[in-house]
Formats: sequence, C-alpha cells, structure tokens
Amino acid sequence: QEEQQNTLDTQRAKEWFEKVKISGYMQLRNNDLFKTNPDMENPQGDRTYGGFDGFSLRRMRMKISGQIHPRLYFYFQADFAADGKNLGQLRDAYFDYFLDEAGKWRVRGGQSKIPFGFENLQSSQNRLALDRNDPLNSAVKDERDMGIGIHYAPVEIRKRFSDLKKKGLKGSGDYGMFYTMIYNGQRGNSIVPNAKKIPHIAMRFTYPMEFESGQYLELGIQGYTGQYVTTSVSDGVKVRNNDGSISEKDAYDQLFRDQRIAASIIYYPQPFGFQAEYNVGKGPEFAFDATNNSGSIGIEQLHGGYAQVMYRIQHKKQEILPFVKAMYYDGGKKFELDARSYTVKELELGIEWQPIKAFEVVGIYTIADRRYEDMANPINQQSGRLLRIQLQVNY
Amino acid sequence: QEEQQNTLDTQRAKEWFEKVKISGYMQLRNNDLFKTNPDMENPQGDRTYGGFDGFSLRRMRMKISGQIHPRLYFYFQADFAADGKNLGQLRDAYFDYFLDEAGKWRVRGGQSKIPFGFENLQSSQNRLALDRNDPLNSAVKDERDMGIGIHYAPVEIRKRFSDLKKKGLKGSGDYGMFYTMIYNGQRGNSIVPNAKKIPHIAMRFTYPMEFESGQYLELGIQGYTGQYVTTSVSDGVKVRNNDGSISEKDAYDQLFRDQRIAASIIYYPQPFGFQAEYNVGKGPEFAFDATNNSGSIGIEQLHGGYAQVMYRIQHKKQEILPFVKAMYYDGGKKFELDARSYTVKELELGIEWQPIKAFEVVGIYTIADRRYEDMANPINQQSGRLLRIQLQVNY
Amino acid sequence: QEEQQNTLDTQRAKEWFEKVKISGYMQLRNNDLFKTNPDMENPQGDRTYGGFDGFSLRRMRMKISGQIHPRLYFYFQADFAADGKNLGQLRDAYFDYFLDEAGKWRVRGGQSKIPFGFENLQSSQNRLALDRNDPLNSAVKDERDMGIGIHYAPVEIRKRFSDLKKKGLKGSGDYGMFYTMIYNGQRGNSIVPNAKKIPHIAMRFTYPMEFESGQYLELGIQGYTGQYVTTSVSDGVKVRNNDGSISEKDAYDQLFRDQRIAASIIYYPQPFGFQAEYNVGKGPEFAFDATNNSGSIGIEQLHGGYAQVMYRIQHKKQEILPFVKAMYYDGGKKFELDARSYTVKELELGIEWQPIKAFEVVGIYTIADRRYEDMANPINQQSGRLLRIQLQVNY
Repeated sequence: QEEQQNTLDTQRAKEWFEKVKISGYMQLRNNDLFKTNPDMENPQGDRTYGGFDGFSLRRMRMKISGQIHPRLYFYFQADFAADGKNLGQLRDAYFDYFLDEAGKWRVRGGQSKIPFGFENLQSSQNRLALDRNDPLNSAVKDERDMGIGIHYAPVEIRKRFSDLKKKGLKGSGDYGMFYTMIYNGQRGNSIVPNAKKIPHIAMRFTYPMEFESGQYLELGIQGYTGQYVTTSVSDGVKVRNNDGSISEKDAYDQLFRDQRIAASIIYYPQPFGFQAEYNVGKGPEFAFDATNNSGSIGIEQLHGGYAQVMYRIQHKKQEILPFVKAMYYDGGKKFELDARSYTVKELELGIEWQPIKAFEVVGIYTIADRRYEDMANPINQQSGRLLRIQLQVNY
Repeated sequence: QEEQQNTLDTQRAKEWFEKVKISGYMQLRNNDLFKTNPDMENPQGDRTYGGFDGFSLRRMRMKISGQIHPRLYFYFQADFAADGKNLGQLRDAYFDYFLDEAGKWRVRGGQSKIPFGFENLQSSQNRLALDRNDPLNSAVKDERDMGIGIHYAPVEIRKRFSDLKKKGLKGSGDYGMFYTMIYNGQRGNSIVPNAKKIPHIAMRFTYPMEFESGQYLELGIQGYTGQYVTTSVSDGVKVRNNDGSISEKDAYDQLFRDQRIAASIIYYPQPFGFQAEYNVGKGPEFAFDATNNSGSIGIEQLHGGYAQVMYRIQHKKQEILPFVKAMYYDGGKKFELDARSYTVKELELGIEWQPIKAFEVVGIYTIADRRYEDMANPINQQSGRLLRIQLQVNY
Repeated sequence: QEEQQNTLDTQRAKEWFEKVKISGYMQLRNNDLFKTNPDMENPQGDRTYGGFDGFSLRRMRMKISGQIHPRLYFYFQADFAADGKNLGQLRDAYFDYFLDEAGKWRVRGGQSKIPFGFENLQSSQNRLALDRNDPLNSAVKDERDMGIGIHYAPVEIRKRFSDLKKKGLKGSGDYGMFYTMIYNGQRGNSIVPNAKKIPHIAMRFTYPMEFESGQYLELGIQGYTGQYVTTSVSDGVKVRNNDGSISEKDAYDQLFRDQRIAASIIYYPQPFGFQAEYNVGKGPEFAFDATNNSGSIGIEQLHGGYAQVMYRIQHKKQEILPFVKAMYYDGGKKFELDARSYTVKELELGIEWQPIKAFEVVGIYTIADRRYEDMANPINQQSGRLLRIQLQVNY
C-alpha cells in the first residue's frame, strides 16, 4: 500500500508551492560608530559607509525560485532596499535550461550574475565582509547584467558546489565549472542604446578540489572583454587619447575599451580558511589636469585584489567566524560619474556570529584610505576608521 | 473512513497556500538582429523595438491570485521590468465578488483590464505576437485602468473560457460573456485630478461557440466612451477646434472626446486558426501646420485593425505555432506626447515553439512602415525590417 | 500510531510554506461623491481626499511573515500603491528575536512601526476610519522608521493582544506591554545624513485589562524625544528663534526639537466601544509674516487628539460597525513642506460592513475644516464635506 502511495505521489501534478519557494534575507546596518572621517565614502559598497546616517537597510531581498520542470530552473529576486527610497527593484530574473537530463550543460538567459570573480558570485547572504571588494566588484555594476550564457559541470562537481553552501562553508553556489556568456556590458536594470556597441563576453573556469582529508581548495580564472558606453559624464569632460593628449570630443556616450582578467583561490574554512582574488585590466578612468582645471576620460590600466583569512568555530549549533581582509585597488570605476579614478587601501577586522542559522550578527572594524576623484571633486583623498555593525535575517 | 476524511478535509480551514498561489512569467528579448532602421520605434509596444539595445526584459511578472472565499476571487500582479529601471510596478489588483453561488454574476473592482478587444484581454503570456496591435491597444494604456464593473456568463460559458486556455488554444481568459465597467479613463497607475472629468464607461459582449466538430468560434463586440484629459503636451501646442481652426487655448489639461467601437472574431487553432479585430472611433490627435511651424491637438477619426492566421502543430508534448499577422492603424495615441499622430502598417511572420509547457521561444520577422509625429518630431515616417527573438519562462 | 505521526511531524524540517505565509490587503477608494470643496486636501491621509480623482488604490499590500525559528519572527511588507505611480515600496522589514523561550522579551530591528499611539500601531486593515488621525499620525511619517527596540509582555498579555485581533475587536496587534526603541527620527525609506543628529528614542506602556464580564479596557501612555532635520524647505524660509525673532539662517537642513507625549484609551466594542487618544508636544512649525511676506520655521507647541465611539453588530457571519469620530489638531507637520502649519477639525460619520471576513465596505461622511499653510500657500483655510467609499479585500 505504501508503494501505491508513492506511485501516486510521483504521478500527481506538483502543487505550485512544491515547484517554487519564497525566500530571502534582510540586512540592517549601522556604520556610524567610532567613525573618524564621515567624508570617506564608498558609493559602490554602501551609501552609509560615509556620513552619519543612523540605521539603514542595505538589502531586503525577496526570491521566488525553483525547479519548475525537470529541465527548467527559474530564479527571480527583487531588492526592496533599492533606488534610494526602498523601492522594489529587480536583481535577478533568469532561467537555466538543462540541455541534458542530468543538467551538466545548462543554458542561462535573463538578468543574472556575470561570471567574473568568486566574491561577485557568492551571495551577500553568505559573504563575511559587509561589502564586496572594490577591485573585482568594479567590473560589473551590482554584479549583474542581461544576457545569455552556457555553463557546464559534471554531476559530482555540481554536487560539490551545492555541498560547499550546505555545509556552511560559504561557497559561491553553482555557476558551473565552465561558464561563458554574452551580455549588454552596461549596468543592469537599464537600457543604453548605442548602434556601435557590441555585447560583452565573459568566461570563467573554476575547479573545487576535494582532498581526502575533507578539505576543499577552489582555483578559478576568469575574464571578460567588451566596450563600455559612458552615460554619466560632467559637462566639459573630454575624451583622452591613448597617447595622453586630450581630444575635442565630449566624453559622454563614447565607447571605451573594457577588459579584465582575474584569478581566484579559496581554501574553505575547516576550520582555517584563506581566500584571495586579483584582477588586472584596462578601462575608462578620469584624470584631472590641475593646470587647465579640466578633466578627461581615457583608457588606463587597472589592477587590484584582496586576501582574506578566516577561522570557523562551531559551538553546538552556533557559528563564530573571525576574519581579516586586506584590499587594494588602483583604477577607474566606469559606471560612476566621469569613470571616477580610485586608489583604495582597506583593512577589515571582523567577526560573524550566527546564534541560529536564520540570524547573523557581523561587526567589522574598518581602516581605510580612499582616493576617488571626478570633475566635481577632482582632488579627493580620504582616510579614516569606523566600526560597522550588521544584523542579518535569513528567511 | 474515506468519507470521514473528506468531511474533515472540507471542514478544516484552508491553509494560506491552498487559497492563493504565486505564479508569473518572464520575457527576455533581443530585437537587434537584421534591423534595417533603428530610428523606427514603437514605444507603445516595446522600448527596444527601435535602437540597438541588446538584451532586455520586456516583462517580469509576479502574481498572487486565488479564490480566497467561495464568493471572492482576488488577483494581484506586479511587473518588475517597469518604469525604465526594472522597478516593481502594479499591473493588476482586483477582486471578483460573486453575486450568486455559481459565480454567474460577478462584481469586479480595482485596477484591471478594460473590456475592449480580445487581444487586449488575452495575456501576453499566451499571445503569439510579441506586441499587441497598435489600433486596439492604443485605446487603454497598458490595457488597464482603475474602476468598477460587473460581468456575467452562464456556468457553461465560463467553463468554455477556461477550457480555451487549458487546452492551449490561447483564449482571453474569463472576462464574462457580458461585461460593463466604469473607470478613470486616463492611464492606470496615475492620478489625474480634473473637476470636469467624468469616468469612462466600457461595454463588451463576446460569445465563444463550440461546434460539434470540437471547433470554437468566438465573436465579440465592444465599445467605450468618455473624455480624456491631456497630461503630456509640448509647450505651445494649442487646442484645434472641430472645424479645423486653431484656438488660443493651450492643449494641456484639456478634455477631449474619446470613444471607440470594435469587433472581434477568433477561430481557435485546431489546427488552423484565424483571428481578426477592427476598431473605429474618435479621439485627440496631433496635427502639424508646417506653414506656421505650429502644432495642435483636436478630435479626429481613428480606425484600424489586424488579421492573423496561425497553425498549431503538436508533437509529443511540444508545440509549434507558425503565424502571420498584418496590422494597420490610422489615428492618434492619446496617452503619448501631444496625442501623437500615427499611421502604422506592419506585417509579422512568426513562429512560437514550446519545447515544454514552461518555456517558449518566439522568433518574428517584422516588416513595418510607421509614421508617428508630435511637436518634437513633426515630420517622422520610418520604415524598416527586423528580426525579433523572445525567450519566455512560465512559472 | 497517531502519537508516532505527531513525533514524526515535529521532527521533520518544516517546509518553506509552513514557516512563512503570504498575505495582504487592498483598498479601493472613491472620495469624489458629494464633495463640496475639492481644494480641501489631506496629503498625510489620502492624496485623493481633495480634488476629483476618480477611483484610486490607497493601499495594495503584500506581506511575507512567519515564525522562521522558535526564537525568530520575521515580517516583510511592501505597498504596491506607493510613490505616486503604484511602485512597490517597503513598509516593514523587521525581525523579533526572542530573548527567552516564551517570547516575553523580544528585540526588534529593522523598519517597523514606532510605538507612539494606538491608532498608529493598529493596522489600516483593521481601522474603522479611512485615514489615521492627524494629531498623532503627524508624529511619524507612515508610522514607521528604521531602528532597534525591545518589547516586553507576560505570556498572558501577549495572548490577550492576539485575542483582541482574532475576536474581530480591532486591536493594535502585539507590540508588547512595554516597548522602547531608538530610531532615525526622519522619514522611513530615506537616508538623511546629519553629523549632529542623534537618534530619536520612543517609549510606550499599554495595558489591556480583561474584566470578568469579558469586556476589555486598554490604557496606554507613550512618548518620544529627538531632533528633526528639515529636508523640504522653500527658498528664503528662515529659522525662527525661540523668542519669536527671525534669524538669518536658512531653515533647510537645520535641527529642531521634536518631542511628544500621548495617552490612549480603548474600550473594545462588545458591542459598544469607545476610543480616544491625545498628544501634546513641541516641534518645528511654519509661520508666515504677512507684513514682510516672509516665512520662518521655529519650535512651537502642538496638541490634539480624537475620540471615537463605535458599535459592533454581528449578524450570522456578517459584521456591521457604525462609528463617529471627532478629531482636532493644532501644530506643525514636520515632514511636510516648510513644516506646514495646521489647524484641523474633522468629524466623521461612518459605517463598516463585512459581508464576509475577506471583504469590507466602508462609507464615511466627512465634515472638516482644515488650515494648512506653507510658503507656497501662506494663507490657506479650507472647509468642506465629502462622502468617502472604500472597498477592502483581505487575502
């Protein structure tokens, strides 16, 4: 009779709530404590990194996701802490179409994360540090864009990606072992018409090794190439030629070379962990000519990365993860005003505490030196220290 | 004992997930291939019809709907590909209150689709063509408005409406056999205060015949009347009198007659199908006076329609539907800048392929000639061709 | 065997739909009938209180909430009738962390309602009147802000709060018997950087007595103190000193004292009910100097309250609740332009009818006299009458 029941169960059509699930997380922050320099800002990371802003929601995420057919996975995520007034804005909307029954090859389409950088792919829900690193995160605005790609991994490797999250090791999730995609290459959630623009193309290969000891080491390499159209440029800022001379052309709505390559290494914390990424590339960057009080945007080298050590302490069902992260970046940020010019050094001493799986507290003491210059603030180097607190709920 | 179980089941209060369900769909598009004229645009249909914009989400829909009480049905739908930056915006929020136990008579209130045109009522999830037709869709912005109505159908006709969707025949869904409603008559999702404005009123009668052969033929007639308040008018554009003379009055915030009548015929594809709609009416329309380089808005005749033939091929669980659609419109579009003046001819050769029920691929080759003129572009006729691709996921 | 089943049930991990639920409500309104003065507006209450706007959605709420862990409750609510064009905007996003197993002490963090006023805490889903009262609701924009607090109640009192809602008595819900919190003190859904700004602090004590007769009487007292930063000020409006003299300082981005205290009494309707609240305090308020045609913002006294009587008629499963509400306010509204100066008198005669639990109809005849003045309308007193209709669906 039990057998009959089972047969019945598998034969009946699935209910909607068995196909998709609602989940998400929220991050409540306060960045004001022991802040020595409110003028030191980090717009890419957190709009309340600078200033004295009190409490703020960094993310309020809602996801609808599920295997809606044996061959089709769907993922939708919106953020209700977006657009400056907590409006609901799209983050992800994509499908994975399985080309084979086991799902080794999957075609992905929609708005989703660009395969460039382990930390970019890792969910903020799992990341230890409060913000992503400047050097790799400046490659793609909000880590996401609209496009189509294909990713591949053998069944056992897909299982390993899944295990690395399930075991609480803070993996990136499953973006395949090999992933290539074409995408608009501007900012997600926007339309930037340009007749000459060709899509960006990105590629990534990553391999999570499992040792007999049970330790995991993941090595990854990735890169992308394309041309970026400038959409946010101050009046009077011109195109700078490759020889450094300033052209007559306004820098607005111009195409600039945009390409990067990066390497990633992650030794998962059992209990000691280590993680580092580095990228080099070329892209648009602002430069100020103090003599003529004029600004220009041209192609420059960019490079930078981070290294992080962490330690995982499990006590009954609680988790405590102290970590130290050091970061460096020198280059432009194409999607900011005037392709803002940056030099960033930051050191973070942090600790994450999970009293229960659904709740996390993070405290980070940040010591930073940030130079970020555009035509509005052509000479702007800030250094300071601050204590940052985050309460996170996972639902 | 089974009987006892049944009694128990019906007596226990329903769980929330038995009363409402979450569903939706997403449409990923690329309209750039083989585009001969990027200046030919179609703002009502798709903002990436013109230009070279890469990949875009046309719709990312989330619905919460269900029979929350034997007498009360509720429907909420938001679109997360809205407002130019993928913000979540309301599409539908309405209830159907059943006046009788069987639900023959239902009062509807809230923001919902206006009963004008079969294709307007049919969900984009089911439509073959990527965009709705210009002639009937220009009647109501986004097909929806805020109001109150009542619709009626005998039980067997309501079942037939439901069958036409379930059987994959791409029906409109159940808006009753007879439907009348009053509504604001401006754009949904907006408040337009005007002391003199009276609500619009719409009426529709449709009848889906079922022949002994199993074929379905649906005939419908519908109309609406009201006055439209202009809200988007260029400086200097004046009111044009009925005799063609230009008044001194600025055309902004003026009331214009707005009325249409339409006929619909749908022969559902088993396997051959045919569908046509036509409407005539009067409404505000821009006119340019080249001699004086001045513009005006006045009441003009409008008319136009479309015809579509389609063929349904079922292969195992797959579906393939080739179709041809021809469309013509001559008239104004009241909710666009200056009640833009249009003449549109468009021919579409398309094919929809559903490898599985949850996934659709559509390819359309579009040949069009579009004249659309306002004070900013007073002489603007564009013709061109383009290939359009859409991937759709139904969850 | 049944015992075994129970053990099994409690041991298995809960499904997602057992941990959270989706719910919400929508309010469709028409405020145009028998309106004698469309110039009499109430921006805090309803943007279609004035003008002739036809049908409008006042609220379209979607909630995701649940006890996601025995120690953790989560609540997320968005409104899809927000930001002027029905965009989805955050209302609540908070957690309650239970400090003890029974949940007597709970720490709350996120955006949630500020514990100031019974009617402010009571959901609009349950309130009889269509809008909250001006005097207490002017304390906190949209009743909500970002912060952290702690609330306490014995188990039996928490149960009583819950009963007051379950029994259809229109209680406030459970914000504890004692509640204190610190919060930004500006408007929710916004970031207002100000180096000198310290958080607001609020406190509330309320006690719902249950008599042997089964009647409930709830008495509450609450207050808050802080400094408000002006963010919406007309050009040329200056700071007014405490002695009434006008300073040279522009009133924009200035800190103003902001503190109130309030008392609440609720005698729950079984069948006769009575409810009253009153608050006094100090806060920024606009003043116009007609002689110099100039405006200023300074600290002024504010006070006001409301009293309401209601009667609950239960007929089979239907409910009918007639009510009368009288309201008075004299003071500023800090979060409106120029900290607008108000004197409001309003009388409402209303009736709520619930034919079924999921559906409510409210009709209110409103008689009001409203003075509201800022630099744009420095002399503005309006009086009038209107009939207001609301249809509400609870899902």
